[in-house]
Amino acid sequence: MTTIDPDQLTCPLPGAETERVLLGHGSGGRLMADLLATVITGELGEPGPLEDAALIGGDLVVSTDGFVVTPRFFPGGDIGSLAVHGTVNDLAMRGARPIALTLAYVLEEGLPLAELREITASVAAAARDCGVRVVTGDTKVVGRGAADGCYLTTTGIGRRLPSATPTAAGGVPGDVVLLSGPIGAHGTAILSVREGLGFEADIRSDSRPLHRLVAAMVEAGGHEVHALRDPTRGGLASALNELAESSDVTVEIDEPGLPVPAAVASACELLGLDPLHVANEGCLVAFVAPAAADAVLAAMRADPAGREARAIGTVGPPGGPARVVARTLVGSTRVVDMLIGEQLPRIC
Amino acid sequence: MTTIDPDQLTCPLPGAETERVLLGHGSGGRLMADLLATVITGELGEPGPLEDAALIGGDLVVSTDGFVVTPRFFPGGDIGSLAVHGTVNDLAMRGARPIALTLAYVLEEGLPLAELREITASVAAAARDCGVRVVTGDTKVVGRGAADGCYLTTTGIGRRLPSATPTAAGGVPGDVVLLSGPIGAHGTAILSVREGLGFEADIRSDSRPLHRLVAAMVEAGGHEVHALRDPTRGGLASALNELAESSDVTVEIDEPGLPVPAAVASACELLGLDPLHVANEGCLVAFVAPAAADAVLAAMRADPAGREARAIGTVGPPGGPARVVARTLVGSTRVVDMLIGEQLPRIC
Repeated sequence: MTTIDPDQLTCPLPGAETERVLLGHGSGGRLMADLLATVITGELGEPGPLEDAALIGGDLVVSTDGFVVTPRFFPGGDIGSLAVHGTVNDLAMRGARPIALTLAYVLEEGLPLAELREITASVAAAARDCGVRVVTGDTKVVGRGAADGCYLTTTGIGRRLPSATPTAAGGVPGDVVLLSGPIGAHGTAILSVREGLGFEADIRSDSRPLHRLVAAMVEAGGHEVHALRDPTRGGLASALNELAESSDVTVEIDEPGLPVPAAVASACELLGLDPLHVANEGCLVAFVAPAAADAVLAAMRADPAGREARAIGTVGPPGGPARVVARTLVGSTRVVDMLIGEQLPRIC
Repeated sequence: MTTIDPDQLTCPLPGAETERVLLGHGSGGRLMADLLATVITGELGEPGPLEDAALIGGDLVVSTDGFVVTPRFFPGGDIGSLAVHGTVNDLAMRGARPIALTLAYVLEEGLPLAELREITASVAAAARDCGVRVVTGDTKVVGRGAADGCYLTTTGIGRRLPSATPTAAGGVPGDVVLLSGPIGAHGTAILSVREGLGFEADIRSDSRPLHRLVAAMVEAGGHEVHALRDPTRGGLASALNELAESSDVTVEIDEPGLPVPAAVASACELLGLDPLHVANEGCLVAFVAPAAADAVLAAMRADPAGREARAIGTVGPPGGPARVVARTLVGSTRVVDMLIGEQLPRIC
């Protein structure tokens, strides 16, 4: 049994960073991947590709997510709707429609009940909109100072759509890389409110459910929809790197063709952020066989959540390293890596 | 959007208690039932009997639980094994065997990785012992001071055993009330460590999985096993009151016949606690039709988790109020109510 000595925490020694949990371990970047591999999946004995959700026999899919976003209310959503969308989307990335949600609260003593009621109503409204029910839950209360107001954990259970077989390991050379919409809005919206940057009028989180979009894609492309991922923590860069690693392929994207809204680009420039690393909560990236790519893209554009869908790259020829390469405006290429550590803590 | 002003929290005005989350809202007692009814299930629009787990179509059952226990390591278990047992047991109370678990962490920056590894290994070992796998998970990190080390949320998915139909609303007049083992060990073990009371050598948490015990009970009694509940937060008093309310029956128990280990009784006396209100993590209470009660009791006693099982009372005749009544040593009766608020915060 080990306890935390606060005096030892203020300045970790160089080289000792890996001995304690760092904010960067929650980033969705390289540090988090290391933590998962060396501590969590290592101890649990669950190797294999990192998936947003797991198949548990037959057509059943399950996914779980904690939500610690701050502030809890932001332009375009709140912690309640975000939790529902995030969980529904993780199921959708395995080609599943949601059949049930569960909801667990950790509440800090002193949280206004009016706020708890507002968050819960937001959960309920988002679930109704997704056509799914919250079937069971749990509520724990901790003393003042032992949590920051309210944390949520949602778990989703879903059933795979017929002919839906997307998996992070499914990408093959030649696949077209499709992106369903603009990137960077969620992370910059949160940061703008948190830091008082004044972009709140121009940037709203893209938090939305994607299961209907995925159903349309699968109807158009079936098994040819090889891989799906929603680029949340760690942004598009992490999502593409995870797919590249799981599929053992090189992913080539066309950087000037990436849809970055002007206000997001301004906010990123001001903050020194790369939009490729900023979290999204309402778009997805797909690897689709070239023969089906046009039909899938047309189906995406016909859905409200995919109106601005586009092809952003391809999966490179066999034999390349498992990484992501961007062609830049000036014609050169650069490697797009995951972030090492933390860019935006508590973004979801 | 509402934020917390810490200055307003130190002394809630009389009558204003219901306007903020109190520690007692997490107690498993009356305040918690009110919070669920008026805020959470009220907003979610999910009425009906309070169940430990929900049926989600066919024979599928799902349950979710957050774990905030302090300390995280205690005699007889730790937060990792407790999370697995608690979730497996909630499935078992609906007559289900576990088929998959999910695991979500909220970690405080600064938590030693060695401790995270130890907790995760404990999750893995407990899951193996229960014959179930952790299939997916999530990890969030919050800054120093925004959590107390480590919180876990586990969700279990299970399948109902053939002929298992227990439900909180299933109790009927004449049912025999069976209890699988001694009460009070978990809560007093936690409190003894937390407060340095010195009972650690004598009292260990009863944290253990109960799904095999339930399988044996269902094999012996089938549909005659009307209702099951594990008396965790709020203790046996809350569990029996919830069953009484859901089934709309009077429950009569024989107080002198309740199995309270001597060390637990001493600890409760010292602390001014009623063992009926102290949390358990390894026993269950059942309402069983009288014709099947002997066979079910024999099956319980043949299982390691039910060796000390016994009948502790009956469900009273029709028309009585939905409450719990205890016959005392001197032959009188008293109403056993749920606690109003908090007795032992962060017990699980």
